[in-house]
Amino acid sequence: MNFIDLRSDTVTQPTENMRTAMVTSKVGDDVYKEDPTINKLERIAAELVGKEAALFVPSGTMGNLLAVMTHTQPGNEIILGANAHIFQYEVGGLAKIAGVQARTLDDSKGIFSAKDLKKSIREEDIHYPKTGLICLENTHNKAGGVAVPKTKIDEIAQIAKAENIPVHLDGARIFNAATELDIAIEELLAEVDTVMFCLSKGLSAPVGSILAGRSDFIERARKNRKMLGGGMRQAGFLAAAGLVAIEEMIERLKNDHQLAKKLARSINSKVVSLESVNSNFVILKVNQELYDTKELIEELAQQGIKISYFGPGLLRAVIHNDISNEDIDTVIDVFSKL
Amino acid sequence: MNFIDLRSDTVTQPTENMRTAMVTSKVGDDVYKEDPTINKLERIAAELVGKEAALFVPSGTMGNLLAVMTHTQPGNEIILGANAHIFQYEVGGLAKIAGVQARTLDDSKGIFSAKDLKKSIREEDIHYPKTGLICLENTHNKAGGVAVPKTKIDEIAQIAKAENIPVHLDGARIFNAATELDIAIEELLAEVDTVMFCLSKGLSAPVGSILAGRSDFIERARKNRKMLGGGMRQAGFLAAAGLVAIEEMIERLKNDHQLAKKLARSINSKVVSLESVNSNFVILKVNQELYDTKELIEELAQQGIKISYFGPGLLRAVIHNDISNEDIDTVIDVFSKL
Amino acid sequence: MNFIDLRSDTVTQPTENMRTAMVTSKVGDDVYKEDPTINKLERIAAELVGKEAALFVPSGTMGNLLAVMTHTQPGNEIILGANAHIFQYEVGGLAKIAGVQARTLDDSKGIFSAKDLKKSIREEDIHYPKTGLICLENTHNKAGGVAVPKTKIDEIAQIAKAENIPVHLDGARIFNAATELDIAIEELLAEVDTVMFCLSKGLSAPVGSILAGRSDFIERARKNRKMLGGGMRQAGFLAAAGLVAIEEMIERLKNDHQLAKKLARSINSKVVSLESVNSNFVILKVNQELYDTKELIEELAQQGIKISYFGPGLLRAVIHNDISNEDIDTVIDVFSKL
Amino acid sequence: MNFIDLRSDTVTQPTENMRTAMVTSKVGDDVYKEDPTINKLERIAAELVGKEAALFVPSGTMGNLLAVMTHTQPGNEIILGANAHIFQYEVGGLAKIAGVQARTLDDSKGIFSAKDLKKSIREEDIHYPKTGLICLENTHNKAGGVAVPKTKIDEIAQIAKAENIPVHLDGARIFNAATELDIAIEELLAEVDTVMFCLSKGLSAPVGSILAGRSDFIERARKNRKMLGGGMRQAGFLAAAGLVAIEEMIERLKNDHQLAKKLARSINSKVVSLESVNSNFVILKVNQELYDTKELIEELAQQGIKISYFGPGLLRAVIHNDISNEDIDTVIDVFSKL
Repeated sequence: MNFIDLRSDTVTQPTENMRTAMVTSKVGDDVYKEDPTINKLERIAAELVGKEAALFVPSGTMGNLLAVMTHTQPGNEIILGANAHIFQYEVGGLAKIAGVQARTLDDSKGIFSAKDLKKSIREEDIHYPKTGLICLENTHNKAGGVAVPKTKIDEIAQIAKAENIPVHLDGARIFNAATELDIAIEELLAEVDTVMFCLSKGLSAPVGSILAGRSDFIERARKNRKMLGGGMRQAGFLAAAGLVAIEEMIERLKNDHQLAKKLARSINSKVVSLESVNSNFVILKVNQELYDTKELIEELAQQGIKISYFGPGLLRAVIHNDISNEDIDTVIDVFSKL
Repeated sequence: MNFIDLRSDTVTQPTENMRTAMVTSKVGDDVYKEDPTINKLERIAAELVGKEAALFVPSGTMGNLLAVMTHTQPGNEIILGANAHIFQYEVGGLAKIAGVQARTLDDSKGIFSAKDLKKSIREEDIHYPKTGLICLENTHNKAGGVAVPKTKIDEIAQIAKAENIPVHLDGARIFNAATELDIAIEELLAEVDTVMFCLSKGLSAPVGSILAGRSDFIERARKNRKMLGGGMRQAGFLAAAGLVAIEEMIERLKNDHQLAKKLARSINSKVVSLESVNSNFVILKVNQELYDTKELIEELAQQGIKISYFGPGLLRAVIHNDISNEDIDTVIDVFSKL
Repeated sequence: MNFIDLRSDTVTQPTENMRTAMVTSKVGDDVYKEDPTINKLERIAAELVGKEAALFVPSGTMGNLLAVMTHTQPGNEIILGANAHIFQYEVGGLAKIAGVQARTLDDSKGIFSAKDLKKSIREEDIHYPKTGLICLENTHNKAGGVAVPKTKIDEIAQIAKAENIPVHLDGARIFNAATELDIAIEELLAEVDTVMFCLSKGLSAPVGSILAGRSDFIERARKNRKMLGGGMRQAGFLAAAGLVAIEEMIERLKNDHQLAKKLARSINSKVVSLESVNSNFVILKVNQELYDTKELIEELAQQGIKISYFGPGLLRAVIHNDISNEDIDTVIDVFSKL
Repeated sequence: MNFIDLRSDTVTQPTENMRTAMVTSKVGDDVYKEDPTINKLERIAAELVGKEAALFVPSGTMGNLLAVMTHTQPGNEIILGANAHIFQYEVGGLAKIAGVQARTLDDSKGIFSAKDLKKSIREEDIHYPKTGLICLENTHNKAGGVAVPKTKIDEIAQIAKAENIPVHLDGARIFNAATELDIAIEELLAEVDTVMFCLSKGLSAPVGSILAGRSDFIERARKNRKMLGGGMRQAGFLAAAGLVAIEEMIERLKNDHQLAKKLARSINSKVVSLESVNSNFVILKVNQELYDTKELIEELAQQGIKISYFGPGLLRAVIHNDISNEDIDTVIDVFSKL
């Protein structure tokens, strides 16, 4: 059976151009910094997001973990949203590996408030951990793929700067955010110290993410990457696909967003919040009097549609490069009959 | 100058009976479990709270840290109140030392709700840390010394038991809670797996707290205590005072509560919430148009009253064994003139 | 300039068959366990080494780190050679991430003695960490690429089994060991609990290693891999090359060993120990009266030969798939003239 | 039965003067730095060892752990003797809590060699942890109570200084060392950055040790002490005994050493090494053809002598304030009859 797979944009198949780029790529030993394709990707990625340097990592989770490890000392407290991917879905690595305490604020709309932030930054006191890092996320996954505007990010970043606290942005889907906000990516990221973004997900590369920031930070992150076992040898194959992702796949994200909005409008009454559909996510509510959420997922699968559980009574549909206009028509049709 | 010191009940001076007990106590090497006074205290303390075994520790912070370390594995998530002492005032040890991620719930009234708890317990999923422990606090310091009733504790404990998650209670001031709730201490603690309580604070012993729970748990905690450096040699001196604390100082806590209520009623308009004054704490609000909070603390000190900063616009007064009825009259007098 | 690169077998270029396999491979989202090529590789790899299950990881360092994390609890002690790669070259991850204390024994001949091991296993005592794991390495890198025979491994493993302590083998170059010892790989590994081996290095795959062991162990390692950020998406591209590595590249390792011996015999007087040249490594001693070791490396590079620093007065030459018989003749020629 | 307890000097009973000092001591809340007796002890202790500042801690283990935590970052490597107490008997805290990797050198004579040290300091390399600390021990417990002379300590300290690596000395029995070496304590410690020494053990105080070093180091250690739960309230009682220990108990240590030598000479043939008996330890060898070591300990206990197991075929006798000349005569008598 050929599924319409809306579970996540992580399922995207690499494009033919990526496969071609991979097979012909020049590779070397990246632990010795001798992989020309990795070196090229890291240089181009840094320029793209307007930072000094970049590091290729095997996953977004590793990129975020490295950011936390490299910005902080164990025993620090970090401030992030209660719904942040780093807190919710990264297996507690921030505590076990980075050794930091998470102070979580309400980010149900995509970002926490400046007011909440100010109350949460620790003064110097023998009872208190030091506030070592602030983390943001854009688009915000658990808030429903919300694109957080630059003004809100900058407001947080200004407070952070005044307190001498670095800001890391989990930009697993930052290109979706920039697309939706119609802003240059480097402008959107101008005030954050570091950013992680994924070459997989919407950009469809098979494997890999980028961590970008100041050169000295990236060198320390590189050593931490080695410790985690993220230093790879001839990783240029993956970088080759990543370069295609950056060159060819950003522009088309707007199509995904259009399809997401089309889907949302068409099944209007089943959507949690129409106005929060501003990237490639549609969050659906389940009529729990009629359906058990997990059973409904099974039923949809039998009708050829894979979709994610997103908490009790909630489903998540993610639009990506392998979802066509016709697929969305089919999905609308199936949902209309529910 | 002889201050009326309301900053905390941690400042209490040991009683004469404690000093006498200390000087005559029999001691031995507790690392070899040969200190008879420690052994006696641990036995009596366990009985008092209705648990199998108990361990003497140099501070409440160490008792709580040992509870977290011994119940969990690094990489687990623990659920506790956002205002919990363990989270707010214990220097981030839960992350750095125990390696656990803190998931914090709203406990501004002293305990989080069963509903919030249920939503926070993790299912099995490759992205999720395991929920390894639930922590409660009674009386709840940051909620203003609130005594949390048994029914609310038991409601949480039942959910925990159904999910096979242990419950630890930070009972630094558990005797204040039991006094206020007029309930036997072991009944109040019947449904929690472990409890830490302080011999210092309201009970006025110079140093030391107790961690109590099942025998196998306590033996593992004992080894963790050795790792932290909390294994002491002839600690029976401290235990001797602790035994006096248990025997002579619990009954009198009701006096502290009466004085707290007297103070609160007398300066009614300056108290945050009269009904939450149900132990030995009075939380005061500062008229921030008239006073800067920290300057007001200075001014009160010049008038002979030491009091704690409790956040912007808030002060905390704690009544204890070294505060007399006359002291409270003086305090009322000073506050009335502000 | 076209170098003869003897620094390490990590520099090997993937073969044409690997590139072809990569471009045509079927891939899926491995975090969902839906990558067919990864699944195939993990099944075949497990069978190859005679273990129940296997996990693909981005590096040998991550494979070893996962083994330590998954076998032990933080606070355990592990026993390994003082020259073990895990201890020497993996950035201290065993302490920072796994939280274990390393107890190191003399393994200058490739493996420590049973006698030393027995003295190092901890009894139960409140002062002692628990011995949680024993690690071996084969071939042993820092001992000069020594292939450790099965009898010696099994002797250690028997002691471990009697004490109920698991054994992990760092087999980054285990196929070199099996080739030299002329033994079936699964027989060589029969008595160890887990093994990590590299698809890169001698087998020439671009990226990736395998951790193999019991199914339940591998499932727990999989979750730890997610925490470290080693969970990748369409990693089947790398697995496709890994499958070619297993199918086509093991048999030819004997050529590398022959060339290593040829080189060693030809420059006899410059080799540290002829009898320890029993895999693809040749360790050379530098006449420090004539040369500074690091300057000699520079000089050789100018003559087209890249070689590794291996400590004061020592060089390491590693033979691999990109080194031909003619290359070795050239190297012999250059060295003879020194 | 009244035992002659030679197991350790940790079993010493506090003197009458200590009990008197305790009962009359002035105390306050040391977390607020308001305990006058603690403050006095910390000031006097710092002066005594010639360092800027000192911190009272509940045990030697905590003092050493704080030294490691405060000097290093998790992920560092520390260099210490393979027989160091910190490595052997402190429950693996250096790995679990401080997150550092232990690189152990041969210290069977009491201190490792300068040559071994030089080979063990790490260069900068992406594969290497940073060398963050060097630890020494004096007297050296597991080497048999050996007093390590200043020249040897200073030789290590000079290398460390040249490499910008701090040196911590575990001086649990540093006064025994200074007594034996007939050197002023501050002179003996002049070249090390920090020292931990015990008020218990030979000095007979009931509880407590001192960590001393630069003021800024001690302030950071104080915060780490709070995290571990070592911040105590009215700890002045313990400090009062500690002050007596410093004032009255150092001078008499030479008696213990004389008795140790008398014992050793008298049972000459049973002593491992007469020349290493240069403090208050006597290490005895068991004729394993005649006795099982642990059974012999039982048998001696039945004859009124408690003595420690010190590894297979070895016993440790420690002389201290509660052991008289007559006790030693009794012991000699019992041993002569074995």
